[in-house]
Amino acid sequence: MAVSLTRFGTFAPMQYTRVLASISGEPAMLVVMQSHATEEQVRAVCARIESLGLKAHPIPGAARTAIGITGNDGAIDLGVLESLPGVIECIPVSKPYKLVSRDAKQEDTVLRIPTPRGDVLVGGGNVAMVAGPCAVETEAQCMVIAEQVAKSGCRLFRGGAYKPRTSPYSFQGLGEAGLKILAKVREVHGFGIITEAIDNETLDLVEQYADVIQIGARNMQNFSLLKRAGRARKPVLLKRGMSATLDEFLMAAEYILSEGNYNVMLCERGVRTFSDFSRNTLDLAVVPAVKKRSHLPILVDPSHGTGKRHKVLPLSLAAVAVGADGLLVEVHHEPENALSDGVQSILPEEFAQLSVEVRQIAEVLHRHVN
Amino acid sequence: MAVSLTRFGTFAPMQYTRVLASISGEPAMLVVMQSHATEEQVRAVCARIESLGLKAHPIPGAARTAIGITGNDGAIDLGVLESLPGVIECIPVSKPYKLVSRDAKQEDTVLRIPTPRGDVLVGGGNVAMVAGPCAVETEAQCMVIAEQVAKSGCRLFRGGAYKPRTSPYSFQGLGEAGLKILAKVREVHGFGIITEAIDNETLDLVEQYADVIQIGARNMQNFSLLKRAGRARKPVLLKRGMSATLDEFLMAAEYILSEGNYNVMLCERGVRTFSDFSRNTLDLAVVPAVKKRSHLPILVDPSHGTGKRHKVLPLSLAAVAVGADGLLVEVHHEPENALSDGVQSILPEEFAQLSVEVRQIAEVLHRHVN
Amino acid sequence: MAVSLTRFGTFAPMQYTRVLASISGEPAMLVVMQSHATEEQVRAVCARIESLGLKAHPIPGAARTAIGITGNDGAIDLGVLESLPGVIECIPVSKPYKLVSRDAKQEDTVLRIPTPRGDVLVGGGNVAMVAGPCAVETEAQCMVIAEQVAKSGCRLFRGGAYKPRTSPYSFQGLGEAGLKILAKVREVHGFGIITEAIDNETLDLVEQYADVIQIGARNMQNFSLLKRAGRARKPVLLKRGMSATLDEFLMAAEYILSEGNYNVMLCERGVRTFSDFSRNTLDLAVVPAVKKRSHLPILVDPSHGTGKRHKVLPLSLAAVAVGADGLLVEVHHEPENALSDGVQSILPEEFAQLSVEVRQIAEVLHRHVN
Amino acid sequence: MAVSLTRFGTFAPMQYTRVLASISGEPAMLVVMQSHATEEQVRAVCARIESLGLKAHPIPGAARTAIGITGNDGAIDLGVLESLPGVIECIPVSKPYKLVSRDAKQEDTVLRIPTPRGDVLVGGGNVAMVAGPCAVETEAQCMVIAEQVAKSGCRLFRGGAYKPRTSPYSFQGLGEAGLKILAKVREVHGFGIITEAIDNETLDLVEQYADVIQIGARNMQNFSLLKRAGRARKPVLLKRGMSATLDEFLMAAEYILSEGNYNVMLCERGVRTFSDFSRNTLDLAVVPAVKKRSHLPILVDPSHGTGKRHKVLPLSLAAVAVGADGLLVEVHHEPENALSDGVQSILPEEFAQLSVEVRQIAEVLHRHVN
Repeated sequence: MAVSLTRFGTFAPMQYTRVLASISGEPAMLVVMQSHATEEQVRAVCARIESLGLKAHPIPGAARTAIGITGNDGAIDLGVLESLPGVIECIPVSKPYKLVSRDAKQEDTVLRIPTPRGDVLVGGGNVAMVAGPCAVETEAQCMVIAEQVAKSGCRLFRGGAYKPRTSPYSFQGLGEAGLKILAKVREVHGFGIITEAIDNETLDLVEQYADVIQIGARNMQNFSLLKRAGRARKPVLLKRGMSATLDEFLMAAEYILSEGNYNVMLCERGVRTFSDFSRNTLDLAVVPAVKKRSHLPILVDPSHGTGKRHKVLPLSLAAVAVGADGLLVEVHHEPENALSDGVQSILPEEFAQLSVEVRQIAEVLHRHVN
Repeated sequence: MAVSLTRFGTFAPMQYTRVLASISGEPAMLVVMQSHATEEQVRAVCARIESLGLKAHPIPGAARTAIGITGNDGAIDLGVLESLPGVIECIPVSKPYKLVSRDAKQEDTVLRIPTPRGDVLVGGGNVAMVAGPCAVETEAQCMVIAEQVAKSGCRLFRGGAYKPRTSPYSFQGLGEAGLKILAKVREVHGFGIITEAIDNETLDLVEQYADVIQIGARNMQNFSLLKRAGRARKPVLLKRGMSATLDEFLMAAEYILSEGNYNVMLCERGVRTFSDFSRNTLDLAVVPAVKKRSHLPILVDPSHGTGKRHKVLPLSLAAVAVGADGLLVEVHHEPENALSDGVQSILPEEFAQLSVEVRQIAEVLHRHVN
Repeated sequence: MAVSLTRFGTFAPMQYTRVLASISGEPAMLVVMQSHATEEQVRAVCARIESLGLKAHPIPGAARTAIGITGNDGAIDLGVLESLPGVIECIPVSKPYKLVSRDAKQEDTVLRIPTPRGDVLVGGGNVAMVAGPCAVETEAQCMVIAEQVAKSGCRLFRGGAYKPRTSPYSFQGLGEAGLKILAKVREVHGFGIITEAIDNETLDLVEQYADVIQIGARNMQNFSLLKRAGRARKPVLLKRGMSATLDEFLMAAEYILSEGNYNVMLCERGVRTFSDFSRNTLDLAVVPAVKKRSHLPILVDPSHGTGKRHKVLPLSLAAVAVGADGLLVEVHHEPENALSDGVQSILPEEFAQLSVEVRQIAEVLHRHVN
Repeated sequence: MAVSLTRFGTFAPMQYTRVLASISGEPAMLVVMQSHATEEQVRAVCARIESLGLKAHPIPGAARTAIGITGNDGAIDLGVLESLPGVIECIPVSKPYKLVSRDAKQEDTVLRIPTPRGDVLVGGGNVAMVAGPCAVETEAQCMVIAEQVAKSGCRLFRGGAYKPRTSPYSFQGLGEAGLKILAKVREVHGFGIITEAIDNETLDLVEQYADVIQIGARNMQNFSLLKRAGRARKPVLLKRGMSATLDEFLMAAEYILSEGNYNVMLCERGVRTFSDFSRNTLDLAVVPAVKKRSHLPILVDPSHGTGKRHKVLPLSLAAVAVGADGLLVEVHHEPENALSDGVQSILPEEFAQLSVEVRQIAEVLHRHVN
């Protein structure tokens, strides 16, 4: 694996040397044999493992044998062992992600997002508030909302110029015209801008106009787009897919880092479950779970995560209390006229009240809101 | 529906008169016809509706007709309309729960749990802390844990004498001997006691020894047990089933209220999803969702909800921040020796720290911890 | 573990001696250490394992160590190892079920259900058709349906006298009067009778009147009821819970076998997922999965599994094609007047057509329909 | 909505005129008011509806009022009504898809896939077998597999040249070299070729080399790619996303049709659920559900749908029995050496046996295997 090391990362390539050296030294898998498996079958499985350049460690039990494997470099699909005679199942042991892992870098990554009024920090005790409309509709709309959320101390602005919509007949966003409005919001109000790219072409434009490139939930496994984002010179906000496991989520980030862009922040926005009273099920436990495994910061989007205005405020507070490194909140001054997702947007005055309470809860946790 | 009105409820039967009168007056269902449906088919569906003693309200559109229905008393299965010619689907409109609904009682229910040291309030701004081991193992174990959590100000003690275990070969609890230990914990440390009943026989005993009867997640739709709990003279803590929708959860509570016991508190403990990094997915958005629909208090159990010690603390804080009326936390002084669920129990000193932070966050929300 | 061996099982106790001897001889778990774990931490984990009476097998890798464990007797909760310093996670290896496993008994279990017209076989190539209404409503209703499905060659009749309903205001079944009607159906038409018990009291009655005791999905982890069913002298049909994993499903059956009743057949009836176009998601892959792990027969209930009449027929054929040992189908001659679940019942003439196609598909698989 | 009508569709544009005319005439939503809603609130909601250019139909009940809406053109987000005072919830009534719907075209669409040996039909009683390796690895590999599956009568060949892989360190496919190998398979063995495109650039190439363009599950909501596929001059096979609802699945197809390409076949490949014994949960009920709502053919991929070789064969038979219009099966002559997904590939001789049984089951259903 030839990793092209970072061009502009917030931490030095040096920190990665250990992981690059150790990738091939972990116990990678456990092969469990049937209780009737013959010694010959066990030997055949071991031979097959060794033929793959790996090392086999049989663990005989009174009733059944298991075989540990070390030396996997992560790129070989070991599932094939499962089809050998006498094998019941193969249990993966080592985690597949490398660069995003705390094994690769123990301290928290702190992202530094440049804005006209100085850098905004995300991660390592810094909690970021990101607010704005679901979709950029008009310059007037954005300016009104920007002015009001700025008063609450918010320094990062969000808004979609390219909208992935379930229906081809729904409003699809203003495109580059929307990006220009966002650039004007930055200029006038001093915000850092976060907006979504939906394919390689739009990513080129977003990289040019915005400060943070958002990859949406539906594109979390659009690997072509992830690789392109990994070659971008701007930080990336990666949203969790609607049915992504934690490993898949971290592996999607790994795609970006493996191309050389280490400036990645994750974002939980709810997963899809049977539970039908809210649009998605906000999986807040993913925050401590990510922090245990990875050095990357993780934000929470309670607007998409719940889909209903009256749930956004309590879930925002819960997200800060669980340790999230920031919030993405949809704010609209006239939600009943919004072209998209008005039903989950809160009012600027609700955002102002939220900002106060977020600061109070962050203080309980000895964290600092930007 | 003859509801035997409460014997010892915290609010007067009077409040229910309105709902009892109005149960049969709501638009109950919408029948959507195919775009090719003939007028004759529409008339036939209307006639069928009227033959059921209901009222049909056709809403003709340019392309397709829908038919609203009023007058359902909630006991008739209207699904049968779906099989009539020309019908695409039937969409239920009115909610099936009555007594648990805010329509029946607008103000929050505040439960009053009697303990040797005075009543503990739950609901209506009162946040309750409930702590103790997963399973009652020995008197010594319970006394040690009780003494330590009492120091943190905790006044409600939990611990299982009857344990529903996935395997018949796992520890199943001490039974009545465990209940006697819990009674001694009450006597010595002044706690109110919450413990689980798993069938009608054990409910008789739990009602005798404990202050709150717990119905576990696996029994949330054990309707025979719910009815028995509805005839009990003690408050009931009802846990959400692993795959229960919000409506099913509230309907399970409705079973208890419909038998005359209005002293019910709900408890979210995580639902089952594809997400595999934690034992369950804690669905905190259910807290504001319940509060919108029902007057009953709702607690959160972050121990079962996450299944891992390092997630219990952050999720506890999140649960209070989202507005839960209390926490059920598993505490064990020697989790590595616990007979059950040690891996999700926190230490007494962790609980002490948690209690401090819970109070601070409750204060931000202008709520009061008992 | 003292297993009281079967009183009336279809296979001899002898076959179980091997499993009883070997329960304590399997590699039971793999403990994965952190990459920074010290040798001392590894030694401490090994010592803890040995102190539990088990054997530790360290597998050192270049980057990280894993520790295999053998000697687990299945009754100790090993999760506690996860809280020791230096441990990342514990991965269970051996399966928790014993008596239901193919390790315990390699050949298929064939159940023999006695009826007035001779035994009906289920399992081992014998496909059983079970038909009848969702709920027993009147004697006339049951007799009409019974007469018609008998004409299609059906020999097992189903119908609920005790109905677990989401709402306390829905029809709850006729109770013992319903059981008497079913007994009459047996007498007049020569059927074997399958009906559900919902608690210990109703199980006593069902055991007395019926030929097969059904445990419904909502009670799959009502362990008190499972133990009672394990002491019954009639075969048991155990439905999979709405969110039961395969292991939990098999462990629920293990509860019944562990009490001495080996005459158990499983039944898939759909699981709860995000997919909202059908009442449940019928998980047909569970059929080959059960057959790989267990000797018990497994049936499929496409009526509850889909919840819509037009899906029952195609899913019935699919269930037979996937290798199910039988079908439970709801049949009603007047589904639009059914008191329960009419929308998922098929007509007797549809059942007749289904029976013909089921026979044809079973023939392709060299299986025989009873 | 200006739909550019098909350039090369298998059915005439004429058939769509009705739906284009009627899109704005359906009852689109039902607004349910609170039981305490005032008459003024009801009037305000009606006024708001009319101000959106729609028509309001109040349905007063004794306890609560509901308001039907007609005249929605599908492009307006009505969720905003939910935030008006007195409103409890908005229930969507009409389905959002138009061109894929049976309302738009009643008879089954039959796709005609050109191959060197004549057209292969898919849909309308024609069952298609598609076989080949997960990934194109070498020309030799493809030729061996192609020769063997051709002997079983298979006429459509599948194999990935671009592989979306969870890990950036896994084999990503041969790219255009792989497409050239597939073109050679077509030439030598007379197959029609189906292969996946993962972004706009690869779609250009796939369109050039293959006969059917596959859009994979992870890209089901990559709307940019769907629109590009809608402008392609080749048929499209669209796989269901891992957590896609039926409506989302059909709306993704609608994106393709709305750009003018009506030659779309759908493919169920398993959804993500809590059920952990198989890689995905194959949701076979989606087949009759699609057929009820849409005229498009739907295939099943039991290889990805189960992820285990021993489940592929029974689930393939089940898919044909449930009425699928075809199967996509991974076949590999040396699965233990496959670079990708060997564990779910079946052997050519297993495929031969499968083909025989598929034909027999199709015959029971009066369907014809190509």
